[in-house]
Amino acid sequence: VSDFIEKLVEEFARFPGVGPRQAKRFAYYLLTRNEEKLKSFTESLLKARKSVAHCGSCGRLSVKSGKTSLCAICADASRDKTLFMVVAHDVDVESVEKSGSYKGYYFVLGGMVPILDEKPEERVRVSELKKQTASRTRDGLTEIILALDLNPEGEHTGEYLKTLLSPTVAGKNIKITLLGRGLSTGTELQYSDPETIKNALKNRASV
Amino acid sequence: VSDFIEKLVEEFARFPGVGPRQAKRFAYYLLTRNEEKLKSFTESLLKARKSVAHCGSCGRLSVKSGKTSLCAICADASRDKTLFMVVAHDVDVESVEKSGSYKGYYFVLGGMVPILDEKPEERVRVSELKKQTASRTRDGLTEIILALDLNPEGEHTGEYLKTLLSPTVAGKNIKITLLGRGLSTGTELQYSDPETIKNALKNRASV
Amino acid sequence: VSDFIEKLVEEFARFPGVGPRQAKRFAYYLLTRNEEKLKSFTESLLKARKSVAHCGSCGRLSVKSGKTSLCAICADASRDKTLFMVVAHDVDVESVEKSGSYKGYYFVLGGMVPILDEKPEERVRVSELKKQTASRTRDGLTEIILALDLNPEGEHTGEYLKTLLSPTVAGKNIKITLLGRGLSTGTELQYSDPETIKNALKNRASV
Amino acid sequence: VSDFIEKLVEEFARFPGVGPRQAKRFAYYLLTRNEEKLKSFTESLLKARKSVAHCGSCGRLSVKSGKTSLCAICADASRDKTLFMVVAHDVDVESVEKSGSYKGYYFVLGGMVPILDEKPEERVRVSELKKQTASRTRDGLTEIILALDLNPEGEHTGEYLKTLLSPTVAGKNIKITLLGRGLSTGTELQYSDPETIKNALKNRASV
Repeated sequence: VSDFIEKLVEEFARFPGVGPRQAKRFAYYLLTRNEEKLKSFTESLLKARKSVAHCGSCGRLSVKSGKTSLCAICADASRDKTLFMVVAHDVDVESVEKSGSYKGYYFVLGGMVPILDEKPEERVRVSELKKQTASRTRDGLTEIILALDLNPEGEHTGEYLKTLLSPTVAGKNIKITLLGRGLSTGTELQYSDPETIKNALKNRASV
Repeated sequence: VSDFIEKLVEEFARFPGVGPRQAKRFAYYLLTRNEEKLKSFTESLLKARKSVAHCGSCGRLSVKSGKTSLCAICADASRDKTLFMVVAHDVDVESVEKSGSYKGYYFVLGGMVPILDEKPEERVRVSELKKQTASRTRDGLTEIILALDLNPEGEHTGEYLKTLLSPTVAGKNIKITLLGRGLSTGTELQYSDPETIKNALKNRASV
Repeated sequence: VSDFIEKLVEEFARFPGVGPRQAKRFAYYLLTRNEEKLKSFTESLLKARKSVAHCGSCGRLSVKSGKTSLCAICADASRDKTLFMVVAHDVDVESVEKSGSYKGYYFVLGGMVPILDEKPEERVRVSELKKQTASRTRDGLTEIILALDLNPEGEHTGEYLKTLLSPTVAGKNIKITLLGRGLSTGTELQYSDPETIKNALKNRASV
Repeated sequence: VSDFIEKLVEEFARFPGVGPRQAKRFAYYLLTRNEEKLKSFTESLLKARKSVAHCGSCGRLSVKSGKTSLCAICADASRDKTLFMVVAHDVDVESVEKSGSYKGYYFVLGGMVPILDEKPEERVRVSELKKQTASRTRDGLTEIILALDLNPEGEHTGEYLKTLLSPTVAGKNIKITLLGRGLSTGTELQYSDPETIKNALKNRASV
């Protein structure tokens, strides 16, 4: 095979969740397509890339609107300014929006804080978060919600953010909260860990 | 193969989670063992069976104590008489006990109420539950916790029990509660359903 | 739980392919059954055990016939005395019989020869195999078929048996053979290893 | 999201083995990359496409050499002209070459003949195969090897090709063969189907 093809396979092998065998199948799939169609594929790829940008506020990838650098959520002045939710990834924003039960603003960290990482500020957007939090404290903020995965990395990230933001909100009547724990859809009691059951009991509610 | 062996394989195929191939392996495993050892296995099986009984109160299988028909939990007068938790299976009691955050009494239904079942009272112990609930309402009961799996059958069973027990507790300042919903250990936000996120938001708590 | 029950769970955990969680479910399943039924289960187990024995010739577990210590195959004088097939396990005999294309006799080793095992003769029935082979060489034997799994342990066992049996058949016009290699049902060419393809080419046949 | 992005996700969802969720992740992965790098990726894709072509003889995708329309194998006059192997896919050629035990020429059908397909000639390259076979019969051909997957579609394709090519080779002392069947690497006897064991017995060989 030519060097061009090998380079292509390498590129595909860097795609998320793609191993060498699938990378090869992708290359083969594209190389056997009509040249015109392939050209149109690469063009739509570049056009799509040009159409998006990271939101100037929450940081998530979103479609440029032309007039502003803000995404549709951050540009919506009717949302609740008292609430500010920090999530790790863009997709988390989508999940929370689908629940229809949050009307505040978001901040996307761009990743978790790895447990043994000594310089998390080089990995996730912590200085930007601090700056925005400070600005929001002067604009009616009453609660920062740390909405993180319930696994060791998520818990570590929560601890880190709490320590980071506490000075900024100290003495300002702003609370920092975590998402509630309990049974999630599909959970069976007999396979639940003690911590989940403990929280499910604490958060029990009348029917 | 002899009829004896075929019958044996059939018995193993009735074991929970065992298919015909594994049933055959079990039969083969036992048939190739020393006769003395096999005899001692069947004896320990019969002895174990004789050593257990369903608790006269909560109904779960437990080791007979000789003096009483009650299991260790139901016989423990120091537990909290204001709380009564209904679970589907014996193993659910173990899970809740492991959490260390419940000190009340239990009732084991002995199964879920299937969604299209017309005569659930023939399947799970509903008349016994009603009788015990009535008795407990005269003995300080303040809350019945329906601790059920978070799946369609569990939700259906919860609805059924609520309807069943409401008359018994009506006007008595006793509430019926469900376990709290939210993120359970291991949950990742991006794969969470809207209902789970909605409840995780509702149950959020300050750190 | 009582010691009886713990002992029972331990016994089930020794069953092939059963982990601690399933062992517990088995114990629970049996302990909640009617005592009479449990008794009849243990009796059918002991009866089945009494009804079987290892064949005095090939060694596989089979139903005792009363008159002879031989299994139905070894007792069948009409089979082909020129062929002697060595397999690792009882179930291998069943597989070969199902193919309907072998009419000779069998010998069940009772296991594979592990690659780093220094004393295989303590693990598999090698001295008995040698003895029987010697006896069959005086009774018309022309071929010993080593029918072993096509994995490293099977190949190692094949090598071991070849070395073991070569002196016994030397100078006697008896060949030692291995099962043919090639594509097996379901094999896709693109996922086949070079060795399989090499043999599939060697064994190709006119249609 | 913009139409550009939706279109992009649709394109990725057409990649082999890619579902909607992974397609979205691919789109997101590329859209968050540096624009320069993305540009270079699309360029390497187009260059690679331009560097390849279907071989004028066997039909498989291969790197253009400039002087000839033939792939490296078909252009190699030192290979064995008596052998002609028909495979379904390009990757099958790679598998057979890796075995190092075939030195003849290839023909890539470009797919299997589906079992209920009424017009296979519109799907796979049958008229080209017939033409090439006829030409090779005048050039020393002695054997056509149908090297197909050992599943129902492969067997059907083999039947179809046999019927197709029989007239062309009739009376010419050219045989049509299939790859040999038997145990393939990793096969365990106890899980083998009767047909595989039958063939493994037929193809058994002395050690």
